[in-house]
Amino acid sequence: MDNVLSFIDQNKDRYLSELKDLLAIPSVSTNPQNKSDMDRCAQWVANHMQTIGLQNVQIYPTPGHSVVYADWLNAPGKPTVLLYGHYDVQPPEPLDLWTSPPFDATIRGDNLYARGSADDKGQVFIHFKSIEAFLKNTGELPINLKLLIEGEEEIGSTHLDEFVEAHKDLLKADLVLISDSSMFAKDVPSICYGLRGLSYLQIDLVGPNRDLHSGSFGGSVHNPIQALTEIIAQLHDKNGRITIPGFYKDVRPLTKKERAAYKKLPWSDKKYAKDLGVKQLYGEKGFTSLERVWARPTLECNGIWGGFIGEGAKTVLPSRASAKISMRLVPDQKSARIGKLVANHIKKITPKTVQVTVRDLHGGEAAITPIDSPGVQAAIAALEKGFGKKPLYQREGGSIPIVTQFKQLLGLDTVLLGFGLPDENAHAPDEHINLDNFFGGIRTSAHFFSELPNFMNGRKK
Amino acid sequence: MDNVLSFIDQNKDRYLSELKDLLAIPSVSTNPQNKSDMDRCAQWVANHMQTIGLQNVQIYPTPGHSVVYADWLNAPGKPTVLLYGHYDVQPPEPLDLWTSPPFDATIRGDNLYARGSADDKGQVFIHFKSIEAFLKNTGELPINLKLLIEGEEEIGSTHLDEFVEAHKDLLKADLVLISDSSMFAKDVPSICYGLRGLSYLQIDLVGPNRDLHSGSFGGSVHNPIQALTEIIAQLHDKNGRITIPGFYKDVRPLTKKERAAYKKLPWSDKKYAKDLGVKQLYGEKGFTSLERVWARPTLECNGIWGGFIGEGAKTVLPSRASAKISMRLVPDQKSARIGKLVANHIKKITPKTVQVTVRDLHGGEAAITPIDSPGVQAAIAALEKGFGKKPLYQREGGSIPIVTQFKQLLGLDTVLLGFGLPDENAHAPDEHINLDNFFGGIRTSAHFFSELPNFMNGRKK
Repeated sequence: MDNVLSFIDQNKDRYLSELKDLLAIPSVSTNPQNKSDMDRCAQWVANHMQTIGLQNVQIYPTPGHSVVYADWLNAPGKPTVLLYGHYDVQPPEPLDLWTSPPFDATIRGDNLYARGSADDKGQVFIHFKSIEAFLKNTGELPINLKLLIEGEEEIGSTHLDEFVEAHKDLLKADLVLISDSSMFAKDVPSICYGLRGLSYLQIDLVGPNRDLHSGSFGGSVHNPIQALTEIIAQLHDKNGRITIPGFYKDVRPLTKKERAAYKKLPWSDKKYAKDLGVKQLYGEKGFTSLERVWARPTLECNGIWGGFIGEGAKTVLPSRASAKISMRLVPDQKSARIGKLVANHIKKITPKTVQVTVRDLHGGEAAITPIDSPGVQAAIAALEKGFGKKPLYQREGGSIPIVTQFKQLLGLDTVLLGFGLPDENAHAPDEHINLDNFFGGIRTSAHFFSELPNFMNGRKK
Repeated sequence: MDNVLSFIDQNKDRYLSELKDLLAIPSVSTNPQNKSDMDRCAQWVANHMQTIGLQNVQIYPTPGHSVVYADWLNAPGKPTVLLYGHYDVQPPEPLDLWTSPPFDATIRGDNLYARGSADDKGQVFIHFKSIEAFLKNTGELPINLKLLIEGEEEIGSTHLDEFVEAHKDLLKADLVLISDSSMFAKDVPSICYGLRGLSYLQIDLVGPNRDLHSGSFGGSVHNPIQALTEIIAQLHDKNGRITIPGFYKDVRPLTKKERAAYKKLPWSDKKYAKDLGVKQLYGEKGFTSLERVWARPTLECNGIWGGFIGEGAKTVLPSRASAKISMRLVPDQKSARIGKLVANHIKKITPKTVQVTVRDLHGGEAAITPIDSPGVQAAIAALEKGFGKKPLYQREGGSIPIVTQFKQLLGLDTVLLGFGLPDENAHAPDEHINLDNFFGGIRTSAHFFSELPNFMNGRKK
């Protein structure tokens, strides 16, 4: 193990240079124009798997973007880990808010800036480097390992279910390991035991059948932008609660123990507001900020557009207006039910002066992982060794729908070993990863592989 | 006069071919990228003025787009008309909703389709052709004529005030003639005696100081899109009335005579709604559709944008959201007062969770022209001869701010002799002009020049 750790320590510069190559590929899965970049990125991942000594490397095409698989299965009697990650990234827009170009990874201060640096290429690459350190130094891994790196996470993992279902034997394992989330804070290593789900809708309103002159027609017909604002404004009440009847019906209440645990975490609303640059926070009355983000469902407007949005003044009364809204869900809300509930409510409150269409764009279920499972306990031990500090428990407000899918399709629990930080702009301009966490992540990954057999055999704990 | 009218009749094909050339120039004044097109268009107008026999043709540069001037002042003792028009056009976007390209004028059915065909190049060109018919046939005009064709009408005539003020002697006249409005309907020639004013604002909201992941942050901070919808939705009540205190204070009430006159016009709400493709009309309670559009102030959202507006699903909680709103004003509301009133109200109702900026983009005053003025009476006579029907009186919901400016700066009343139709998509895709109105307009223009001296000398009426 000492050799492995010192190998990691000696190769830091090379790691960054290799990661830059990976981050240079604009693998934006939602944009059809990036299809060839997606293919190129899958090929890069496969080539790198080969290079670091993994076996049975294979690119599996899907009707969407390819899945990349590899394994190393030469540790008989040891547990088998299925490592999941994704090589696709969010769109980089708005480009003018990036300090350095999104696909030209740049170090500033303690961070590496690039789209995908934290979500999720950087975190996948962390495991590549710990695997390499074992295989180059000892010729073997302390466990059996299967890697499944997909290209559609940012668009709802459209074809992954199909792939997993068709390859249940290939993917057989003892647990799933995912690094696609954040620690609680810098120097506060933590393990995440819960994720929120998602339901994402698009609302399209049509008023008049053509764009109109706002002078010649204004006042006689309902402006679809106005109607849209009137609809969206109705979805929250004055207490920040969602007004849709039945929306909170399946929400699992926070336990006293959970609320007490969150209060022990280092947190300041004042600091949080200052960091975000807002004078006043906002949220559901009766809950703290952490509770709101981790354990309460929300409804956000992710985008809105209609009419003239260029420079200057165009006096148009537009024909159309649209919005994208998404609900973050908590156990035991079901994504499909909430999607239908919200869509039906929007249709119900839309006035007769306009026509509405609501489309379900994608969704995923919320999840909670048992804290006392061997995988989580091994992760706690690995984090303590990797970062030199006792880690804390937390939830995460984001969604990794695949966690639910692995449970449903393969019967596997997932260990969420996140090396990101909450302020790393995962889906925004200037996404970055902290370099201490990056290198600490590689050490932690190595310790996890090394510790896991002890916990799986019940020798520790 | 017979020669003039038969000349007009014989040259129709040439007129259309010349107009197509003019309409081919994308003279979009609001877009800096079209600056050279603006210059090219001013030059085209100047060249054409020369060709049809006008004198003292001159392009006057301004800090923005040029003003084109010409005159013919060889009718001593006759009245002098200042003909105003504009060669700039609205942006053509959204391009995908045009049936034929916006700058490739195309005849379909009875209409000529192109950006600027009705607003206002087509209507300016109508007068060019009646002037040409007089000068080519008789060598003279029945009146003295000055032409002032500007390039900034669609952006608030930014530099025209300055120009008019600096050239008061040059522009001295007995009345202003403008063709930049619509008749009441096809085969219902009418003269417009009132215009609405305008106040145009942009609202920019900033929430968090960066785009955030809607999972990791959603629920703890006010989404600026949500805040914007909540602000805009508050600006109208359930009766379609604007809720801003003091907004209706200076509104001149409709007289019984006006309301009775409007009821005589051929009008069907059902037909209007059907033509616009809406199931139900919308507007201020207690007023008819015509009253709402002509004589009541309104507030429209002309554009809204924020967050992710591309294809697919991006789970962002955006940093910013913006909207363009404009108020159509009626006598005696003042544009500057309303702009301030609305801006202050928006600032007042903006919650502390977001920051707001409201910018005044442009404005113009409402206007009413005396119905019994000689110019309006000459126009009535000309319309009856040009179209073979007794015309009706109407107002217009749009704005021609320059009408107020001509009154204030030159002391002149304006005759609004509009040859457009209300459904010609003046600021929208598939803008067009009806060919019967185009040719009827040329005849009417000739009759107006011929009739005006009679009314000005008090011989008729």
